[in-house]
Amino acid sequence: MRSQQEVDTTLQNPIFSNEGSDSQSQLPFGFANRTERMGSSAIREILKLTESPDVISFAGGLPAPESFPTKLLPTLEQEARRRYGGTILQYGTTEGFLPLRKAAVGMLQERGVWVNSLEEVRITSGSQQALDLLGKILINRGARVIVESPTYLGALQAFNAYGPEYVEVETDQDGMIPESLEEALRADGVCMVYSVPDFSNPTGISMSLERRIEIARILQEQSLKKGKIIPFIEDDPYGQLRYEGKQLDPVQSFAPHHVIYLTTLSKILAPGFRTGMVVARPEVLSMLVKAKQGADLYTSNILQAQAAVYIGDGLLEQHIPEIIGLYKPRRDAMLKALAEHFPQPEFSWSHPEGGLFIWATGPEGMVMEDVLKQAAGEKVAFVPGSPFFASDRGYNTMRLNFSFQSEEKIDRGMEILGRIVKANLP
Amino acid sequence: MRSQQEVDTTLQNPIFSNEGSDSQSQLPFGFANRTERMGSSAIREILKLTESPDVISFAGGLPAPESFPTKLLPTLEQEARRRYGGTILQYGTTEGFLPLRKAAVGMLQERGVWVNSLEEVRITSGSQQALDLLGKILINRGARVIVESPTYLGALQAFNAYGPEYVEVETDQDGMIPESLEEALRADGVCMVYSVPDFSNPTGISMSLERRIEIARILQEQSLKKGKIIPFIEDDPYGQLRYEGKQLDPVQSFAPHHVIYLTTLSKILAPGFRTGMVVARPEVLSMLVKAKQGADLYTSNILQAQAAVYIGDGLLEQHIPEIIGLYKPRRDAMLKALAEHFPQPEFSWSHPEGGLFIWATGPEGMVMEDVLKQAAGEKVAFVPGSPFFASDRGYNTMRLNFSFQSEEKIDRGMEILGRIVKANLP
Repeated sequence: MRSQQEVDTTLQNPIFSNEGSDSQSQLPFGFANRTERMGSSAIREILKLTESPDVISFAGGLPAPESFPTKLLPTLEQEARRRYGGTILQYGTTEGFLPLRKAAVGMLQERGVWVNSLEEVRITSGSQQALDLLGKILINRGARVIVESPTYLGALQAFNAYGPEYVEVETDQDGMIPESLEEALRADGVCMVYSVPDFSNPTGISMSLERRIEIARILQEQSLKKGKIIPFIEDDPYGQLRYEGKQLDPVQSFAPHHVIYLTTLSKILAPGFRTGMVVARPEVLSMLVKAKQGADLYTSNILQAQAAVYIGDGLLEQHIPEIIGLYKPRRDAMLKALAEHFPQPEFSWSHPEGGLFIWATGPEGMVMEDVLKQAAGEKVAFVPGSPFFASDRGYNTMRLNFSFQSEEKIDRGMEILGRIVKANLP
Repeated sequence: MRSQQEVDTTLQNPIFSNEGSDSQSQLPFGFANRTERMGSSAIREILKLTESPDVISFAGGLPAPESFPTKLLPTLEQEARRRYGGTILQYGTTEGFLPLRKAAVGMLQERGVWVNSLEEVRITSGSQQALDLLGKILINRGARVIVESPTYLGALQAFNAYGPEYVEVETDQDGMIPESLEEALRADGVCMVYSVPDFSNPTGISMSLERRIEIARILQEQSLKKGKIIPFIEDDPYGQLRYEGKQLDPVQSFAPHHVIYLTTLSKILAPGFRTGMVVARPEVLSMLVKAKQGADLYTSNILQAQAAVYIGDGLLEQHIPEIIGLYKPRRDAMLKALAEHFPQPEFSWSHPEGGLFIWATGPEGMVMEDVLKQAAGEKVAFVPGSPFFASDRGYNTMRLNFSFQSEEKIDRGMEILGRIVKANLP
């Protein structure tokens, strides 16, 4: 233990300053090659903007704090302690907390996932961890990963560490285009397909039912041809947040051997619970668990127990209509503001039936990063679309989040943004 | 959504059974090459034994449930909610929850870590995650990782995914042998050194103060020679659990540019909080945060906020003497039982001044996996030592955990184990 006086001295002489006379501080640090692809994230830098309360931010993908069942939290905490006692404080199994996996089965069946028992469900630390673990167990350096164009930036970040090449599949207002997927699958060395079929991040677009069935057929046919399963990762964080239209069965339900289905409680309970769920074939789950053991041993049973109470006692089912009641008017407000304040026909945008995002496309030659810089100066934020593409494109696109701001602020912010956008038309 | 009738049909026809007529179920799944090193873990299989309450288990590395501040939990939950409100439910920063990082500085300084501000501290999902992230940012396939012989199995599991070669450094009753480290560092392509200097898992042995200073010197000298920093990962989960002798400053305090210091609250609060801490140079922390963003975005602020209350309000400081009061008699009971029931001079064992483990070595030719099989039949468990070696050796060694069982059960279990051990002498 250091004496107080010594500690005080260190406080005056920060050891990590660059001006030290110790030459060791000048020596470089040797990082692994894979870190070259761990660039700084545009989203991260922009999220810093949203930390100031006077900014109207359509950046980020944050659920509204008003959507959290904050009043329920003490009940969840008490019930978890009452039912499971001190065992929730101890190390738990890597597979996940049994009562949560059991409760998840009913929730997943309601969602249309083809799942029969808790044996087919594993828990991860948010679905972001599932993406990292799947990258780890499926991607060889140089192997091809098929993604939608555009796709979820966080998935690219997770996969990048394992050195894949990306093959982009075109999308339209009905999601991934089957012919484009079939073409992409002809390449050698495809190790997986990644998709967000429901209310995609970043576009808000959903894949039509016909396409889900057609894509399931393609997966099965191409797998037979190649003599091995082509895994399709179906990332479904928003599927339960539908504001209009009928729920569509997941792709997983049409090709359960091929699809690795992911969901999370981050948008229907709260991100703080860090609870992701994976449904897949037994050999995938088994390998995923081995990888998770090395990655973080297990996910906290304190939080898994509370999530088990939330789902198992029907509190989730009661809460989802409240979240929808909050978000639907916000989506409507943003669609209305786009129609009022954004220039047409220069701009077009998606009309999502659920989820958190609208995707807007400006004319060719427009650079949304420039628009963002000007918008930030007027205390409005959004995410430019180009980081959501695996290739270098999309500079004229933007992602707008509507879940985090009130209708009044959406209108005010979009009016400002519309003005800036008009001034930047090429 | 599927109708109830359809759901019932699926329950009768499990889709994942092996007897399906669908040929797709027979197609192989292509996993990445790195999964070849994700073997099943001996510890995991043996931990399954400990789940039966009638087994006296010295396997695992579980803290005693009696050591958890279970009565404090409602207070931690309430205070976290009262102080930080609903914000703890929202997405948080990858760097960690600020109030926890702030509270951690004092705790780390008390431990002798050379740290000046929260800027030098990052939070991970348990220190197992720190091992995974450090593997990801430091290890190129084929690079050399220097480890103690034996070393922590969980570190090998985390690193294996990144394809290193291991170089073993010999240890004795004073820990890592400096000359052996110096020899190992002469090899090309060394990307890091990994060590548990205090009450090592698996041996319980601590590195002497003289060796810490000498190893710091070697790191600095060899880094200068190689023209780049050789990082030394100092994994310190047990440093605050000392039952006799004086606290020794971490290696980090003698070579703060070179050492990446890790600790965790798993053994001094509870594993369920999944709270690890990392102290390192700014460029390491920055890269670690990028890797963590792809791996799980951030660690739950619900739990980090409770941990901040626990440390910041001095509850940790009050609690540590209670844990020591519980574990010291258990260590003493196991040392006494070893002396009474184990054959001498055929066996020797470590005399740890803290931590959770004792390491016993039998005569050459003895195979502890056979002893385990017999012991399990008599409802006693331990971990054979060989999985803790990076190379194929150590079949005559065993790790004995003393934190989880009462003194009475330690005596009873060790009497049985001593009898089996004697019957298995070669």
